[in-house]
Amino acid sequence: MEQEIISWIYEAAERIKAGLGDALKVDQKSGRTDLVTNVDKETQDFIVSKIKAFDPEAKILGEENGQDETPIDHGRVFVIDPIDGTLNFVMQQENFCIMIAVYEEGVGQLGFIYDVMRDELFWGGPKVGKVFYNNEELSAPENKSLNQGLLGMNLALYRKNIYHAQEIGNQSMGVRVLGCAGLDFIAILKGTQIGYVSSLSPWDYAAGKIMMELLGMLTCGADQKPLSFKGREFFIGATQAAMQEIQAFDEEKN
Amino acid sequence: MEQEIISWIYEAAERIKAGLGDALKVDQKSGRTDLVTNVDKETQDFIVSKIKAFDPEAKILGEENGQDETPIDHGRVFVIDPIDGTLNFVMQQENFCIMIAVYEEGVGQLGFIYDVMRDELFWGGPKVGKVFYNNEELSAPENKSLNQGLLGMNLALYRKNIYHAQEIGNQSMGVRVLGCAGLDFIAILKGTQIGYVSSLSPWDYAAGKIMMELLGMLTCGADQKPLSFKGREFFIGATQAAMQEIQAFDEEKN
Repeated sequence: MEQEIISWIYEAAERIKAGLGDALKVDQKSGRTDLVTNVDKETQDFIVSKIKAFDPEAKILGEENGQDETPIDHGRVFVIDPIDGTLNFVMQQENFCIMIAVYEEGVGQLGFIYDVMRDELFWGGPKVGKVFYNNEELSAPENKSLNQGLLGMNLALYRKNIYHAQEIGNQSMGVRVLGCAGLDFIAILKGTQIGYVSSLSPWDYAAGKIMMELLGMLTCGADQKPLSFKGREFFIGATQAAMQEIQAFDEEKN
Repeated sequence: MEQEIISWIYEAAERIKAGLGDALKVDQKSGRTDLVTNVDKETQDFIVSKIKAFDPEAKILGEENGQDETPIDHGRVFVIDPIDGTLNFVMQQENFCIMIAVYEEGVGQLGFIYDVMRDELFWGGPKVGKVFYNNEELSAPENKSLNQGLLGMNLALYRKNIYHAQEIGNQSMGVRVLGCAGLDFIAILKGTQIGYVSSLSPWDYAAGKIMMELLGMLTCGADQKPLSFKGREFFIGATQAAMQEIQAFDEEKN
């Protein structure tokens, strides 16, 4: 299955790159800076058509086209973010990812994050027992503390200091705001960030969660509960050491 | 002169890359997250030795080794940031730049920003009448308004809402925090960010200012005054349209 998914991702990326010069049809979703384009929708449709040909029984949980409420816990579910970082895609034509994850009976089996313009594919999970950066097996990043690494963060959380985001950020070596969850997960998998604190939907974290956990790192939602895969929620992903420290802010200071 | 400087930058980058596996000697400067390494110092020394052989009369304004107070306005001054984004360099081994600028009697003639790990060189200025991305001439980015583009920002300015940083950021399409001034200038030169609002030292902005202005964009310091080239100061660099809007926050709301 993994080789098929990789081929769909590369084919989808080629289609996206071939259309980069074309005028985009951009619509707003929840507001002025929450965008969707014809390319997001077409890319999701393309990937869904490949999935349906491969496994007609599979269910789809995807950002676009009204497929955003599929439950994660029954059967085989493909979780799709056709263009993660749509605002970067529209404004920069770079710094965006294609993300796909496969869950079976609620258990993450495979995750794929592809930085389209840098041609960097991160993929793996329990089904293959490893995580790869292109063809190279990744080793687990060092279990660094919060004060030993850079932390990705959602800027609105930080500004409003929700869930102690400012104290958490200030205890890290520095906060980075990249505008694309996939890029934060890539940095964590490479070991160049110790975590990511954000507000995410299932398709934003589904693939990253699988690969982080296979490499011994942790994820959770609000109040230290497991992620719900239902709508947008508070998200922490971090090394074990940093997770303990981030969660301690919640316990000590609430 | 420009071909010599380009060759020094490539040679300095090769030395940095060759040493990436070696243990770094890291020291703190103003605090826990303000770092300098042996590689910063050695790279500056290397570039200075090349400058001295090329032009024994030239003066140096550089981040490291006590060369940080040279006046900009007399003779030929080379402004050097041997590793811009030292924290990224230490934590990520990527997302850092080498930056060099040449000023003559206070007038910017040439600027160079090299993203070492992505092998992307941006260079040019009045001396050559153009700005180049590697060997390709760059055209001026579109004169976009604040609400049409992404804005790079220093996170501390944003958190403390200094100089209306939060209102400015919120009027843009989104704020990005990259931890490396050179990467923000690169994004502006490519047209993928409409500006950068930060707190910078002369070596952080010397090269970027020259190239931005050659492409019709603007820079200024606090209170809309020209940048002083003396110590760390408030910095705005933006398209003409966005600069007008950013400065208006200052006028209307103080």
